[in-house]
Amino acid sequence: MSAQEALFEPRVVASRVREASRIVSTLPSAIKNAVLLDLAGRLDSSAGALMAANGEDMEAARAEGLPEAKLRRLELTAAGIGQMSEGLRQVAALPDPVGVVTRDDVVASGLRVQKVRCPLGVVMMIYEARPGVTVDAFALCLKAGNACLLKGGREAARSNAALAELLRASLESHGAPADSVALVTTSDRERMRELLQLADLIDLVIPRGGRGLIDFVRTNSAIPTVQHDAGVCHAFVHASADLDVSERVCVSAKTSSPATCNTLECVLIDRDIAPAFVPRLLQAYAAAGVEVRGDDAVRAHAGGLSVTPASEADWGTEYLDLIVAVRVVDGLEGACAHIHRYGSNHTDVILAQDEGTIEAFLARVQSSCVLANASPRFNDGFQLGLGAEIGISTTRLHAYGAMGLEELTTQRYVVRGSGQTR
Amino acid sequence: MSAQEALFEPRVVASRVREASRIVSTLPSAIKNAVLLDLAGRLDSSAGALMAANGEDMEAARAEGLPEAKLRRLELTAAGIGQMSEGLRQVAALPDPVGVVTRDDVVASGLRVQKVRCPLGVVMMIYEARPGVTVDAFALCLKAGNACLLKGGREAARSNAALAELLRASLESHGAPADSVALVTTSDRERMRELLQLADLIDLVIPRGGRGLIDFVRTNSAIPTVQHDAGVCHAFVHASADLDVSERVCVSAKTSSPATCNTLECVLIDRDIAPAFVPRLLQAYAAAGVEVRGDDAVRAHAGGLSVTPASEADWGTEYLDLIVAVRVVDGLEGACAHIHRYGSNHTDVILAQDEGTIEAFLARVQSSCVLANASPRFNDGFQLGLGAEIGISTTRLHAYGAMGLEELTTQRYVVRGSGQTR
Repeated sequence: MSAQEALFEPRVVASRVREASRIVSTLPSAIKNAVLLDLAGRLDSSAGALMAANGEDMEAARAEGLPEAKLRRLELTAAGIGQMSEGLRQVAALPDPVGVVTRDDVVASGLRVQKVRCPLGVVMMIYEARPGVTVDAFALCLKAGNACLLKGGREAARSNAALAELLRASLESHGAPADSVALVTTSDRERMRELLQLADLIDLVIPRGGRGLIDFVRTNSAIPTVQHDAGVCHAFVHASADLDVSERVCVSAKTSSPATCNTLECVLIDRDIAPAFVPRLLQAYAAAGVEVRGDDAVRAHAGGLSVTPASEADWGTEYLDLIVAVRVVDGLEGACAHIHRYGSNHTDVILAQDEGTIEAFLARVQSSCVLANASPRFNDGFQLGLGAEIGISTTRLHAYGAMGLEELTTQRYVVRGSGQTR
Repeated sequence: MSAQEALFEPRVVASRVREASRIVSTLPSAIKNAVLLDLAGRLDSSAGALMAANGEDMEAARAEGLPEAKLRRLELTAAGIGQMSEGLRQVAALPDPVGVVTRDDVVASGLRVQKVRCPLGVVMMIYEARPGVTVDAFALCLKAGNACLLKGGREAARSNAALAELLRASLESHGAPADSVALVTTSDRERMRELLQLADLIDLVIPRGGRGLIDFVRTNSAIPTVQHDAGVCHAFVHASADLDVSERVCVSAKTSSPATCNTLECVLIDRDIAPAFVPRLLQAYAAAGVEVRGDDAVRAHAGGLSVTPASEADWGTEYLDLIVAVRVVDGLEGACAHIHRYGSNHTDVILAQDEGTIEAFLARVQSSCVLANASPRFNDGFQLGLGAEIGISTTRLHAYGAMGLEELTTQRYVVRGSGQTR
């Protein structure tokens, strides 16, 4: 355990953030935006120092033999820092969700009843190597009036410490409490369990990372969590589908960025169209270097192309790789039954031209995002017009699907009367 | 353990309800409403049989020495049954929240992006003696497109079994799955823990009852919960308050129904107004038979009236009885500091005529319901115009404050494109 870790007492740190959250919750938009813009400037002017701190993390990580994919996520480049500061300017430009009135009625008793958006309080984000999350999560939490506890990965400790100094300096330079954010670094599971029990001090936990992290949080947290879980995304190609569009969606949704949660993992092909569509899809996947795992019906139409026989384990698998499962199903019923059984409530797509079938699919498949004739890649906060994204929730409580600023708030009742009693 | 309890296997029961929830989620409003109206008719025509079953529960409960307050909650009277069927007719008349479009935009890529209300899936309600909750909870869950698991109290087992038969008959008579509702009765904590681990089958748990029940659920549940917790409601009487209004609110909010969660538990009096208001408030409480626990400043103005010295334990206590804590505070700052420290995020009131002070209080005190110049009694789903209420949440996630039909739904993204990829 490093000296830095030894200094961190979960209840003490969380109490300070809790106290600050009282002030953050009523900070005027102008101050929140000034802090974000100030921070953007500090990031730009401190890029050298940040890259130096990150260099030490990278060196240690290489010495520990961290895999290449993790190293890439850990690295802070000049371009990456530029993206962070640009992101801060974008969040500053978004409308402030706090104080927005979503209902305003006078009820029978004469009371004026409003529902008003308010911050959640204290949000804890638990993530892994990526230091950019430190800045993103802070910006979204602050803009939504929340204080935040950021639990970053041990690998990024030096990068995050350098970033945290900038965050605190930006807060203080505009008279906002520096304790609006606390960065903690620990790899000690007991400490983590302690943190996850502080339901009196922390309102929401968002774990962002691999299955192991999410399961650990789910099992050990007494604090409500919103989970960004696996994306087992399906595309159903209906008999009425435009085959050019279908091929384009099915290929690009796999190949353009295979390791992200909105990647297509399974294509369901309507039996009526299988003879026409299976061969061209297989050809397109072969050309793109994608391994296909198909059921018997798919393999019957393979016409010499290589198809790995799919086993039961292939349905419902998130490959996050250049592998795709392909299955022939009996129409809309077959597609819905497959998705209900194996889907993960993330993103599911129908490719079809028949309006009735499209509407039936969009109504029956109740994943957090269902799309007709578009790539699952569009399940993304920016693409859906949220202006920002802190994750994609696959649990139905609080927020379902892409989470932006609004989803980092709640609503309370504000009631004005003239002496009513009952 | 009774024969009935031995038949209940948590995963088997929950799986059946899960399966039914697929159908319930897309039931047309007309069918849901027909089931509710049918059930209202069955309740009316089966009142005799229901009271007979309830009579057996009452007899057993008396033999076990259940306290009088619990017996009153357990009892089903003809009037109570009439209220249940009237409640069902009201829920049938409410607008269906499912399918309501809350956002409808065309974004830059040309995609049409909608946010659409959808059911949560399977809701589990855990409650105690009151059999009326069985009907209320079923009605609200069904109307919001959810299947439900109802875990009633052991004391009400016979009453609930009789009610469950009617629920299932009403569902079946309109072609809806009888498994849309399952009633389970167990007092076995191991079984309860098993149920609370079924996060893959149940989407939300709502515990409704005493502190022991809520703590048990909070500690043992892997399923998201919305808690209806203690109501430590405050009223702050500001120097600018109308003293007639203040007295009326402070007295009726304690005496009209002392054991409910929206009862006033603590009056905070601005120091500037204490000499004028304390004596008349104490007099009014004495006349109403309310015991006052006051701090030194209150007792200094008691003028011979009896005031129990308040101890630290009195601040933040939910008495649910004819006892009230009264404290003198230094203006708005003092009131906010007290409420932040001792409040329960339920309901807090300001009595004042100064607009600036009112607005500052309503902004700074972020309880689920804050009221100006009205009784905390109005924090109630019906009074706030929700048409129904399944509880009052004191946690900020998902729903904060009074929960009606909308709060039993979530929202998902429905996106229509024309072949977009990225």
